[in-house]
Amino acid sequence: MSRKVPKHIYLTEDQMPKQWYNLRADMKEAHDPYIHPGKMVPVELDDLTPVFCTELAKQEADNTTRYFDIPEGVQDFYKIFRPSPVIRAYELEKALNTPAKIYYKFEGNNTSGSHKLNSAAAQVYYAKEQGLTSLTTETGAGQWGTALSMACAFYDMPLTVFMVKISSEQKPYRKAIIETFGAHLIPSPSNTTQIGRKILEDHPGTGGSLGCAISEAIEKAVTTPGCRYVLGSVLNQVLLHQSIIGLEAKMQLEMVDEYPDIIIGCAGGGSNLGGIMAPFMQDKLAGTKNPYFIAVEPASCPSMTRGKYAYDFCDTGHVTPLAKMYTLGADFIPSANHAGGLRYHGMSPMISKLYHDGYLDEARAIEQSKVFEAAKFFAKHETILPAPESAHAIRVAIDEAIKCREEGTAKTILFNLTGTGYFDMQAYLDYNAGKMTDYIPTDADLAVGFAGLPKIPGIQE
Amino acid sequence: MSRKVPKHIYLTEDQMPKQWYNLRADMKEAHDPYIHPGKMVPVELDDLTPVFCTELAKQEADNTTRYFDIPEGVQDFYKIFRPSPVIRAYELEKALNTPAKIYYKFEGNNTSGSHKLNSAAAQVYYAKEQGLTSLTTETGAGQWGTALSMACAFYDMPLTVFMVKISSEQKPYRKAIIETFGAHLIPSPSNTTQIGRKILEDHPGTGGSLGCAISEAIEKAVTTPGCRYVLGSVLNQVLLHQSIIGLEAKMQLEMVDEYPDIIIGCAGGGSNLGGIMAPFMQDKLAGTKNPYFIAVEPASCPSMTRGKYAYDFCDTGHVTPLAKMYTLGADFIPSANHAGGLRYHGMSPMISKLYHDGYLDEARAIEQSKVFEAAKFFAKHETILPAPESAHAIRVAIDEAIKCREEGTAKTILFNLTGTGYFDMQAYLDYNAGKMTDYIPTDADLAVGFAGLPKIPGIQE
Repeated sequence: MSRKVPKHIYLTEDQMPKQWYNLRADMKEAHDPYIHPGKMVPVELDDLTPVFCTELAKQEADNTTRYFDIPEGVQDFYKIFRPSPVIRAYELEKALNTPAKIYYKFEGNNTSGSHKLNSAAAQVYYAKEQGLTSLTTETGAGQWGTALSMACAFYDMPLTVFMVKISSEQKPYRKAIIETFGAHLIPSPSNTTQIGRKILEDHPGTGGSLGCAISEAIEKAVTTPGCRYVLGSVLNQVLLHQSIIGLEAKMQLEMVDEYPDIIIGCAGGGSNLGGIMAPFMQDKLAGTKNPYFIAVEPASCPSMTRGKYAYDFCDTGHVTPLAKMYTLGADFIPSANHAGGLRYHGMSPMISKLYHDGYLDEARAIEQSKVFEAAKFFAKHETILPAPESAHAIRVAIDEAIKCREEGTAKTILFNLTGTGYFDMQAYLDYNAGKMTDYIPTDADLAVGFAGLPKIPGIQE
Repeated sequence: MSRKVPKHIYLTEDQMPKQWYNLRADMKEAHDPYIHPGKMVPVELDDLTPVFCTELAKQEADNTTRYFDIPEGVQDFYKIFRPSPVIRAYELEKALNTPAKIYYKFEGNNTSGSHKLNSAAAQVYYAKEQGLTSLTTETGAGQWGTALSMACAFYDMPLTVFMVKISSEQKPYRKAIIETFGAHLIPSPSNTTQIGRKILEDHPGTGGSLGCAISEAIEKAVTTPGCRYVLGSVLNQVLLHQSIIGLEAKMQLEMVDEYPDIIIGCAGGGSNLGGIMAPFMQDKLAGTKNPYFIAVEPASCPSMTRGKYAYDFCDTGHVTPLAKMYTLGADFIPSANHAGGLRYHGMSPMISKLYHDGYLDEARAIEQSKVFEAAKFFAKHETILPAPESAHAIRVAIDEAIKCREEGTAKTILFNLTGTGYFDMQAYLDYNAGKMTDYIPTDADLAVGFAGLPKIPGIQE
């Protein structure tokens, strides 16, 4: 029996996008500029190039160029693991008995297990082109570290990964896969950097944090000749690369005459949400379509739903530029929930701006027990075991589909299934054993983070 | 730049095969019949139905029906994770500087991580249709247990998995994923069965074996009302279901005007090799084409290269029918190598027959250090981290491609990439740490297994 819309909607290799889309070119207002942490004035391109590859620094600063050509060397890499399918969730729809049509873009069918490879490929390619001789980065949950180690193996680029110490201990197999692809992995904080030694001195026995690891990775990059730092989320350049998700998804839905009424992405630093959202947000900004966007974050780390829209450091060590974003404060330490990729105090400045200005319609915070309930339900029916991060989007997609059933409306829902949970089985073990608790910070917990927000003369007092 | 053959060759949903192909219908001679372990005469259909679903017992016994319709309920399941791509190994070819064209059928893009889901779906579907109320099985490496738990979750069928104890301890996350899909997992040997208690008494502290786990699973099936036993390899029915691999691959290669000169599969019980081989072997048997088939097995468990072609039990507990096959003896305990899915003393009777009669051209045994060397090389260039089992086929594909370079011949090579190594990271950790040893059994080691081969009056003295 042939059906009008197949389960998997693929693009051919020839149909794959050859340009990334820069949503900033169509935003009504640019996000507020980064502020130099020393000079306390907006950063210039020259401030960025000691830290980032030159081409990536240019992309970071460019608010006007609408499309960037994807270099052939990156396209070749993309062809190895892309295009990714858009999948019609027929089985989930049936199990929910909903009139809604649910689609998901599945970015997990590569060894890194997530969409992170889209930006890793681009960043390593540019580093190689520039003649750099090594890179550093940090990783928390390990998806970014894996993706970057894969890209570095492919392009022959030495890589040092600072992995949040507690995470490297809890996920020995994440560590193993990163090392299998040839990267040098250092649990953070470490005694290999000045900031690491200071953190260890101040907090002996600490398990580390993403903020600490970022500080160490940046220090190593700026103190090593021919080395630069690369980051897997938050930045404009990353959202630019991730636009491939939305560009493909939009084409795939057009092929089956669909346009989403609701678009859902989980939100940690904002990379996947920014990616899937981009071309649909373009329509919304142009006034030609009006999709409803939902960002989903963990209740334990609610930067959009309970954070402040303020200038803040991107890292714990306060070495990065300041970004205007929704933040819980760089000093806020989220509880140890199981969606490591969403445990970040801030949010992409672009996404923050779109949310603040009302174009990103809604942010929703979900407790992790509800997230895992949705993950297991999804796995049973769609047969894919999702990453805990991705399951945040699944939870809201299910909730919206149930609402459609109750209201008798047949909306078209698109969510981004960013990755698989194969390296997150400890989380599923805990859930299966009933050992999962939902931590929701109190207002007093949040006040600690807010108290540490930086003062910027004339801008943020 | 558009190339003639894309990286990924997909079929559309409508192009997917709607029938499985039964290679036995085209074999010059059937494999020797199964022998009843009590009566010592060929088994009848009635002997099989207390153990297997009726429809599967029929498939097991049918040597003449060329094509079996894939039920719509199974096709619907297949559409969730199939068709799987044939991938042109452009990057591997380039890294090897070989004139050979290398293609691989990639069966790992589903949560079970392997091709095992093809047969799991079919077996659970038939069990459900028959009105059975539970199933049992065994699992070693865990790929089959995962696949079956997924299919049982999907079709709502209770499942008990006997997992080789040492494996359940070494792979806690395999255990976790099987339980996440709702199956009841029991480390084997256990005190839940008579045979398990006996094994524990005779061998206190044993880590178990696939043969023990099979015995326990069969005992539970035949002593529980409405319960049957299902097996993931070796059997004719499983090879029938796995023919979907070869049927798809052949169509995919035809789409780009290719026909393989060499076809390579790893071989444990024979399910994936039998699957990818089937329609190409049909051509060979018909004399229309002459592809060269290579079965690859671990040097530590060399059933084809060093085993005897003889009647033997399929399990350690000696409760199964006797099959004429290449075997190291049901009492042979292979060393603890890292390709758990290939640690089986015997080989599919069909594949054994084809090998014995010279249609399956060659079996090759490989040491595991060479297998992991190939696995890492492949991962670097093709970006997929393979299962240790699958890496056996990769090793030989690389060796054949190097031979092409040396001889200046441009052969077309097809191998089956049966699965991913995401749950096998301990093996990669050991390899990265230089802690991997190659165990090759001595002739004296093998003699122990051969000594235990059963005597069958008038057939095998």
